[in-house]
Amino acid sequence: MTAIHPVILCGGSGTRLWPVSRKATPKPFLPLLSEETLFEQALRRVAQDDRFAAPIVVAGAAHADLVMAQLGDVPGARLVIEPAAKNTAPAIALAAALLPRDAVMLVCPSDHHIANNTAFRAAAMTATALAREDYLVSFGIAADRPETGYGYLRCGEPLAGGFAIREFVEKPDRIRAEAYLASGEYSWNGGIFAFRSGHLLDQLAAFRPEMARLVAESVAGGHSDGARFYPAAEPFVQIAGDSIDYAVMENTSRAAMVPADMGWSDIGSWAALADALADQADADGNIVRGQADLAHCSNVLVVSDGPRISAVGLEGICIVVSGEDVLITTRDGAQAVGKLPRAVNQ
Amino acid sequence: MTAIHPVILCGGSGTRLWPVSRKATPKPFLPLLSEETLFEQALRRVAQDDRFAAPIVVAGAAHADLVMAQLGDVPGARLVIEPAAKNTAPAIALAAALLPRDAVMLVCPSDHHIANNTAFRAAAMTATALAREDYLVSFGIAADRPETGYGYLRCGEPLAGGFAIREFVEKPDRIRAEAYLASGEYSWNGGIFAFRSGHLLDQLAAFRPEMARLVAESVAGGHSDGARFYPAAEPFVQIAGDSIDYAVMENTSRAAMVPADMGWSDIGSWAALADALADQADADGNIVRGQADLAHCSNVLVVSDGPRISAVGLEGICIVVSGEDVLITTRDGAQAVGKLPRAVNQ
Repeated sequence: MTAIHPVILCGGSGTRLWPVSRKATPKPFLPLLSEETLFEQALRRVAQDDRFAAPIVVAGAAHADLVMAQLGDVPGARLVIEPAAKNTAPAIALAAALLPRDAVMLVCPSDHHIANNTAFRAAAMTATALAREDYLVSFGIAADRPETGYGYLRCGEPLAGGFAIREFVEKPDRIRAEAYLASGEYSWNGGIFAFRSGHLLDQLAAFRPEMARLVAESVAGGHSDGARFYPAAEPFVQIAGDSIDYAVMENTSRAAMVPADMGWSDIGSWAALADALADQADADGNIVRGQADLAHCSNVLVVSDGPRISAVGLEGICIVVSGEDVLITTRDGAQAVGKLPRAVNQ
Repeated sequence: MTAIHPVILCGGSGTRLWPVSRKATPKPFLPLLSEETLFEQALRRVAQDDRFAAPIVVAGAAHADLVMAQLGDVPGARLVIEPAAKNTAPAIALAAALLPRDAVMLVCPSDHHIANNTAFRAAAMTATALAREDYLVSFGIAADRPETGYGYLRCGEPLAGGFAIREFVEKPDRIRAEAYLASGEYSWNGGIFAFRSGHLLDQLAAFRPEMARLVAESVAGGHSDGARFYPAAEPFVQIAGDSIDYAVMENTSRAAMVPADMGWSDIGSWAALADALADQADADGNIVRGQADLAHCSNVLVVSDGPRISAVGLEGICIVVSGEDVLITTRDGAQAVGKLPRAVNQ
């Protein structure tokens, strides 16, 4: 059996984790949950296991040196430098074009957290088997709350280890999210995919022919420099960017999902980070990274790169100090951090 | 008619306004409400008015240079350097001993805010008249809420412009404070006093003879250096420190109070400062000193000496950044700031 080819996407900006996540060092490259960065965790998840080939990493030029530094000494690993940020469909297509047509690619974001790597690998094996049968497979993350910030997948007919996808649902409102959760038919769309690379390119050519053509031209005109591959910029910058969901998944008749209950979080806000760090909380639910004195506080997250934080009487507040910036937000407000003037105008 | 002699006490530490108020530069010497410091405001309150003589300032050696710098060029002003912090009774007695026995002294804390100086001066005139008749006069601050952080004065028989004090009450609990407020018989004890200096010293000698003797020895053995007077340390450090309330006011039969409704605040916490700055608040009740971006916030106070503050979703929170410290507290929690490790162990 041929190995699975991990494709790790490093395109996100992560402004909702400002002021720690910044343009120069965005979320994937930060040690938010442990000594390892999220990108390093994503690499380790598909390493030291014969079932996985060396990874292909797709990133922008601004972060190429960060990627190489954190990638370390992985034999055979490749870095594809996107000439421009064009969302996930072109990024995935670049990687697909560099692989044999019969390779199965496992597309993983670099900025998510997965607590249970065993469950992840089990789902990856199931997804791979479906991808070999030319299904386009999305991981369906087990929903445990009526989240309004994610897209949802609705299960259809059972397949081997998974389900056909009956429906893709955009971010719902609260009432619909609660109904989805209660029905048991819906999973979150976590942005993790398995494809046979040739099949993915064929499907892209069917639904987004111009994008497929420009990606192919860009790869044909590209050049390598050691582990780095530089697609030609001139065709690539002409691409009308789009997500793989919009460009392919929502159009194909071969969409499938594999359920995955693996302690997943997109660490999409400081509140989400606090949730992911819950096992490090003290008896009052407080989590401190850095130095802090908390009096009469509960469910407070402190992340400070220097100044000592003193707090009194707070409940459910996130406090983040980084460089010259101080952020204080409620958990509910954490979703709006990326729209703050200082986060936008970095 | 002889002038009133202002005596301005600079002994407080103001740790509840940490991290801005620190040992080296405590609360009286900070521009908390305007460009002027609280001490400068206290000076101005009794300046440029023929009814007031030049002030006597009482302060510790650590703050003598701050006092002189902020005192500026006030002809005849004197600074008495306390050899040790012994609470208000010895500090007031030092000043009394430096004045003619028939002088009326008006004792004022240096770290309070008074919005209405006209009302203050009117109360001072009334208090002075009573002091000339050998009453020991306390300003009774009009209570406007059931405050549990202050002592209360209970009115007795009417006197010219004031009342005899029937009772001194320690900081009450909430239920008693509400009863006091409802009764209309109680005022806050604001720590502002008028005495005839010779009478004050006689009363001190009656109730605290050892303290009176040691103060007298300390003054007799002291020396001047320009505007500064240094009482002898050796007797002074032996004094068992006490407040003027405990040492004299609660023991005398001549205690009187003059009602004063003058926009008084002891600026005893960040929440109290926010109240005193209410006229500078925006439409959502937010007050910003420094740079801040506030989204969905109300009744938030920001004081920053440098870093820009970004906040989302907060209600009734005080945020203070000073030097290497960051403080975040609820309004209710503000009373506990002085007990934080960083405030205690400066």
